[in-house]
Amino acid sequence: MAFSTVDDLTVSMTYEPNAYPFERESEVRSYSRSFPTTFVRAAGSTMTDSSGRTYIDFLAGCSTLNYGHNDPDMTEALMSYLSRQGLTHGLDLQTEAKAEFIQTFIDLILDPRGLPYRLQFTGPTGTNAIEAALKLARKVTGRSTVISFTNGFHGVTIGALAATGNRQHRMGPAIALPGVTRALYDGYLGASVDTAEMLDQLLSDPSSGYDAPAAILVETVQGEGGINTARASWMRDIDAIAKKHGALLIVDDIQAGCGRTGTFFSFDSMGIKPDIVTLSKSLSGFGLPMALVLIHPDHDQWLPAEHNGTFRGNNLAFVTATIALKKFWRNDDLREDVRRRGRLVTEALTNMSLHVPGSVVKGRGLFLGLDVGSGERAGAICHQAFHHGLVIETSGARGEVVKVLAPLTTPDVLLTSGLEILHRAVEEHLDLRFTTI
Amino acid sequence: MAFSTVDDLTVSMTYEPNAYPFERESEVRSYSRSFPTTFVRAAGSTMTDSSGRTYIDFLAGCSTLNYGHNDPDMTEALMSYLSRQGLTHGLDLQTEAKAEFIQTFIDLILDPRGLPYRLQFTGPTGTNAIEAALKLARKVTGRSTVISFTNGFHGVTIGALAATGNRQHRMGPAIALPGVTRALYDGYLGASVDTAEMLDQLLSDPSSGYDAPAAILVETVQGEGGINTARASWMRDIDAIAKKHGALLIVDDIQAGCGRTGTFFSFDSMGIKPDIVTLSKSLSGFGLPMALVLIHPDHDQWLPAEHNGTFRGNNLAFVTATIALKKFWRNDDLREDVRRRGRLVTEALTNMSLHVPGSVVKGRGLFLGLDVGSGERAGAICHQAFHHGLVIETSGARGEVVKVLAPLTTPDVLLTSGLEILHRAVEEHLDLRFTTI
Amino acid sequence: MAFSTVDDLTVSMTYEPNAYPFERESEVRSYSRSFPTTFVRAAGSTMTDSSGRTYIDFLAGCSTLNYGHNDPDMTEALMSYLSRQGLTHGLDLQTEAKAEFIQTFIDLILDPRGLPYRLQFTGPTGTNAIEAALKLARKVTGRSTVISFTNGFHGVTIGALAATGNRQHRMGPAIALPGVTRALYDGYLGASVDTAEMLDQLLSDPSSGYDAPAAILVETVQGEGGINTARASWMRDIDAIAKKHGALLIVDDIQAGCGRTGTFFSFDSMGIKPDIVTLSKSLSGFGLPMALVLIHPDHDQWLPAEHNGTFRGNNLAFVTATIALKKFWRNDDLREDVRRRGRLVTEALTNMSLHVPGSVVKGRGLFLGLDVGSGERAGAICHQAFHHGLVIETSGARGEVVKVLAPLTTPDVLLTSGLEILHRAVEEHLDLRFTTI
Amino acid sequence: MAFSTVDDLTVSMTYEPNAYPFERESEVRSYSRSFPTTFVRAAGSTMTDSSGRTYIDFLAGCSTLNYGHNDPDMTEALMSYLSRQGLTHGLDLQTEAKAEFIQTFIDLILDPRGLPYRLQFTGPTGTNAIEAALKLARKVTGRSTVISFTNGFHGVTIGALAATGNRQHRMGPAIALPGVTRALYDGYLGASVDTAEMLDQLLSDPSSGYDAPAAILVETVQGEGGINTARASWMRDIDAIAKKHGALLIVDDIQAGCGRTGTFFSFDSMGIKPDIVTLSKSLSGFGLPMALVLIHPDHDQWLPAEHNGTFRGNNLAFVTATIALKKFWRNDDLREDVRRRGRLVTEALTNMSLHVPGSVVKGRGLFLGLDVGSGERAGAICHQAFHHGLVIETSGARGEVVKVLAPLTTPDVLLTSGLEILHRAVEEHLDLRFTTI
Repeated sequence: MAFSTVDDLTVSMTYEPNAYPFERESEVRSYSRSFPTTFVRAAGSTMTDSSGRTYIDFLAGCSTLNYGHNDPDMTEALMSYLSRQGLTHGLDLQTEAKAEFIQTFIDLILDPRGLPYRLQFTGPTGTNAIEAALKLARKVTGRSTVISFTNGFHGVTIGALAATGNRQHRMGPAIALPGVTRALYDGYLGASVDTAEMLDQLLSDPSSGYDAPAAILVETVQGEGGINTARASWMRDIDAIAKKHGALLIVDDIQAGCGRTGTFFSFDSMGIKPDIVTLSKSLSGFGLPMALVLIHPDHDQWLPAEHNGTFRGNNLAFVTATIALKKFWRNDDLREDVRRRGRLVTEALTNMSLHVPGSVVKGRGLFLGLDVGSGERAGAICHQAFHHGLVIETSGARGEVVKVLAPLTTPDVLLTSGLEILHRAVEEHLDLRFTTI
Repeated sequence: MAFSTVDDLTVSMTYEPNAYPFERESEVRSYSRSFPTTFVRAAGSTMTDSSGRTYIDFLAGCSTLNYGHNDPDMTEALMSYLSRQGLTHGLDLQTEAKAEFIQTFIDLILDPRGLPYRLQFTGPTGTNAIEAALKLARKVTGRSTVISFTNGFHGVTIGALAATGNRQHRMGPAIALPGVTRALYDGYLGASVDTAEMLDQLLSDPSSGYDAPAAILVETVQGEGGINTARASWMRDIDAIAKKHGALLIVDDIQAGCGRTGTFFSFDSMGIKPDIVTLSKSLSGFGLPMALVLIHPDHDQWLPAEHNGTFRGNNLAFVTATIALKKFWRNDDLREDVRRRGRLVTEALTNMSLHVPGSVVKGRGLFLGLDVGSGERAGAICHQAFHHGLVIETSGARGEVVKVLAPLTTPDVLLTSGLEILHRAVEEHLDLRFTTI
Repeated sequence: MAFSTVDDLTVSMTYEPNAYPFERESEVRSYSRSFPTTFVRAAGSTMTDSSGRTYIDFLAGCSTLNYGHNDPDMTEALMSYLSRQGLTHGLDLQTEAKAEFIQTFIDLILDPRGLPYRLQFTGPTGTNAIEAALKLARKVTGRSTVISFTNGFHGVTIGALAATGNRQHRMGPAIALPGVTRALYDGYLGASVDTAEMLDQLLSDPSSGYDAPAAILVETVQGEGGINTARASWMRDIDAIAKKHGALLIVDDIQAGCGRTGTFFSFDSMGIKPDIVTLSKSLSGFGLPMALVLIHPDHDQWLPAEHNGTFRGNNLAFVTATIALKKFWRNDDLREDVRRRGRLVTEALTNMSLHVPGSVVKGRGLFLGLDVGSGERAGAICHQAFHHGLVIETSGARGEVVKVLAPLTTPDVLLTSGLEILHRAVEEHLDLRFTTI
Repeated sequence: MAFSTVDDLTVSMTYEPNAYPFERESEVRSYSRSFPTTFVRAAGSTMTDSSGRTYIDFLAGCSTLNYGHNDPDMTEALMSYLSRQGLTHGLDLQTEAKAEFIQTFIDLILDPRGLPYRLQFTGPTGTNAIEAALKLARKVTGRSTVISFTNGFHGVTIGALAATGNRQHRMGPAIALPGVTRALYDGYLGASVDTAEMLDQLLSDPSSGYDAPAAILVETVQGEGGINTARASWMRDIDAIAKKHGALLIVDDIQAGCGRTGTFFSFDSMGIKPDIVTLSKSLSGFGLPMALVLIHPDHDQWLPAEHNGTFRGNNLAFVTATIALKKFWRNDDLREDVRRRGRLVTEALTNMSLHVPGSVVKGRGLFLGLDVGSGERAGAICHQAFHHGLVIETSGARGEVVKVLAPLTTPDVLLTSGLEILHRAVEEHLDLRFTTI
């Protein structure tokens, strides 16, 4: 194994695949436990490991690879950029690559939607974007509390972690997570209780114990939380509640954005215009670290460098992100594809659900999942699927949802193959249980 | 301007250099204000803008480009990797690129030093690494407070920001920054007061108001804080104090590591073995986002995924980082170069200091600066230097230090040219002031 | 005006009633604004001002004077104690007065109920008792978060204030109030939503964002919150939820205890045995500052002096509190009286409510109120009542409840007189409004 | 034992002195462990227990009984007030007792010093006064951080506890104590380091990590911290630093005030006029719970009831406090007495210190102590003294100071007797150690 062509740089290697070096990784490693092999290359919706085995990828980097692995146009643009000695790193200097990204983003995304946002490039991870968004909302409003929702996931740095619901991450009593009050997501108490109305009641009541919030931070679809979807009418209510109570509306579109639900922004058809939007994951289109905070100009009250970071301008990501926009967002083709493929996946999951008592198909666009009722069951199904060549994972409060996050560009034939593997895994899991009991 | 060779992806562009698109960047942008031009390519220690002008780079991405821009071996390795469709993004899956990086890091860095660290790849920015380190120290010790130092800089996400001294970043009263108590850095009160002894007194006194700390977080050289250096004996005292009081010692080597002071770790010759070390910035060698937390195995008490993040495995960075290690850390050549170039810069700065009453040369290795006594003066000198083709910035509590962070690989002749420009800028600034007064 | 009989201590006084000296009180003063006169003596359920006018007291020190003003037996005991030079202050030393109080409390209150509590005397205010209770629960469980409820009031020192719902007190963003998560009180969303079940769902859901709590802190009747009553079944559910999730149940019986609802503890007939109970207000029986935390022995994990305070043993209060227990809690007479008087007040309030569209009678025992729908209206009614010689105040999130907190010992004839004044005030307010509109 | 003269209220008692009832007190009890007897009466500087033994009191309720126990003029005033059915409790209503206290306080304390303070009566404990003071400073300045000092003690409710240095009280990591940054008290690093200058440097340095403070909270003598005294010049520097940095100066005079240092305020001769002063402990003069916050009118920005509490008007305390002012603060007699007695105690402690190698006499006025170098030794001396009939306690970070807090009014002959007992205890302790070794 020598990816380097620079022979004189080779040192004696003791490396054998899957063995020694990974043992030195911290116990914190996780996906490598679910998929215990070493991957060497990937293209489109498939990944190949060091034994030459190829897998269909229904994980897509948790929706970071919406356009698949190693898109050839992006690869070509990258290689061209590298050949020309384009800047790879320049703090937040102005570079050609950044200029073209900004211009393209304005032309293809913001202007057609009438969105006047300013662009802030933060440290290139979603959690850094959330930290910036929350900080700015607090600065703009002079308030400290942010409302976030049950089952929300917004990252694990302390500021963002405070807004994240997952108890495994929340550090117990080791440190107080500051400045977040929890509200109930759409449908949390079932269809009969309007959780937006409840939030309004709590914020309107001067002795409810709910302080006036700086912001309401919300995902339109909760990916990690279990593919929970908010209704457009609920989102509009939340938008109205934010305005009524002087809070900014921040939509965290890190996982749901960049086309996962069919439209570029997950809220495109919802009739809301958030004050702040966070993007990351599939933004670079190529899996490269990149994060972006979109800020309504009225709220762009940052001082220079008030929120900074070494890697806030990942120029290779600008290069591929620009190609991603030009290739996929100049017309409605991708949206159509997502719609069709979404139907295809929904139908397949619905079929599977017939085998699993109490299971429920969840999600919208290609942000879909099958809630099988327990994390143990969902985990076993994914494990079985991997055995048959499908990379797929769970989400949800207890890991009870088998999550289908195939690249949006997955050819229908591959999508069908993946779903067949999944179906087989479901059946085998049930048989297995039947047999062993 | 079309860096893309994919013609059919081109949209009509209204872009003109330095103009429209950057106006849509948030007010938070900063370096682009100091260096108001658009850079299009870079190589080694120079950068070229869209007008074709070439600058000597004494900023090096704030020590992110210790090996210069676009190292040809790294470029070649990257292009090879891209050609082979190597994985660019794979969450924290095992990949060939990661395996080779880990193995190389163990072989060339850890084993020769007898360091048994486990490796945790976090979200690829320094602040994410700091967040992980602090969180782990709190978990391991069951304590919540971390000691950090005056003028320390550790990032701007809330957990790391709490440890950062800079008031501009600290958000005023908008949100309480949790879990950090401040101590005084080496020399903060002058040579006559031993601030390590003071810290020991405070931690030993049961009614000092200093709670038992989870960790002591320290930079051996404070880059943003003004190129303040800690003596090895002081670092050993801090190490002993941490052990005495049951706290972990975390060395933040994000800016000072990767050779900036001459050795790979800035503490290599200090006789300490920190419990946790954070690395980022120059780790990838190519300016690509990457961050690493080194954890003594005794403290690797993470649960799987307890601290996670989408981009914790930036495979392109693994590729270049591996080359960087093989190319620069297999022998002592770079160390010798840094020593020689450090002397060269120190002499030049000392000469300049003769012109500026009260100025002081600070730092070690190639982590050097000239404290000219005021931020206004330092800023004016850097501004003048840029006018003459040198990219250089300030640091320090009030921006009073002109900071020389040239790539470690800067050829002596270029280094000298840069220093001549700087000298000229100093002289002109003084003349200008003389003239106008 | 010279209450002192020590003539040689008299200084020349410029004092005139209602005038000069009170102008030097801070703007924070409040009740003196509602009742702008100077009171000189009081007995039973009446107060007399410096002009000789006598008022019926339906405020009773916000339920601090459940046995009325200046009970003659308590006065006699106090004077006897003072004559004998009994200790008035002794930190937490053992004194005769404390011994007799503890013994009496055990004999008359704890033992008959089979309650094994330990007694902690804190600084003699309710908020100090709450601070101690929360601190202990955090120590015992090793958790930091406490659940408290919408419209709860537990005091205004920072630890207790965090649990208090009232936004006016909560300091805006000036300081983060630590360690409290809010839940919804019984009936907060109307009869159709079971808020106990909701709390259980939130605590059971590992990604709800609700951390495992150290304690659930609850009032059985929310006095300041608007005389909101919790059903016994709901309290039992909350008790069960606390146990299920490893949290302590703390009942704040500061206002509702000492007979206000008819029984000594407000939860006597509810079938729950809280882990911790806080008492204050009417505990001394004479209006003297006193506070008590009752702790199940399993949880009495305090170190000596871990929570301390100068006035934790107010011996004059021990003297009167002992008399109060002996006089009022050796048989069921007071309970019977409260029941009869509660019916009497309820009927009267119900009659008044016929005049006020949308008004609602709330409460139980002699902890009663009339919700008239707006703070403006309730305030005007109380103002009018004071004009006619009745001291009465409002409570509730917006001050919308006219609160009847007459001493439990108020003779029926005085109670009736007070209610007639209140009825008249309601009518006049409505006429006034009718006339002026 | 029947202090009650109301025979029909007597219940059967199982009480035996020192036995049963106190076993039901929480483990948190502390002084009763040091002085394991039951006290039944007290007068002046002596206390008598249930066996009839009389002790000299050098504890004086930790300076709560500066005028001794059961001052006969105060007793008489109290009994007169009770006879007249004066209000004992009236929330913060205007009462005759309060009026006379305010007027007397203005006439005898504030006006002669030219102090324009407004008076806020808080819940009647020192910690409640501190909570109010900190809250107000945060409101007035819009800042959240308060500076407090090493070894400071300000109470144990969470807001005040954050400012208290004692680790035993600070709750470990169970909850973050909000909003306090620690500075070093006068002399903390010995005579050669000016800790006021250090504080100024830290507050002036924009990247020190010290945020702009709302207030500086300081005791002129640290009682619990070990009888540490601040020099007047240092206090003036702190005053100037507060003003320079826009912070309020809060002097916590709860223990040092009311004459303990000779003057009414401990800072009377220091040339400072604090923005806020807190008083409690000896304010009522009779050991009754009372607390007062003095606020410069410019800062009296409270809204009505913004900080409240049930017992903020303890009228019995107003009665005795008025007598205390009239009796002791109309002329300089007490000041002269304190000066003379202070010299007497200082000489005696100096003599004792000759026996104890390394011991140091500390304090000023009658706020004095002997630092004997270890808590074990100081505890043993106090234990031995109690054996001989002297009630005396330790203070200091490790309990290493034998603290002499005799009532200011202690007749010289009693003072001498007490000091002789103490001297004997010191000698016996040393002999004992000598013998056993």
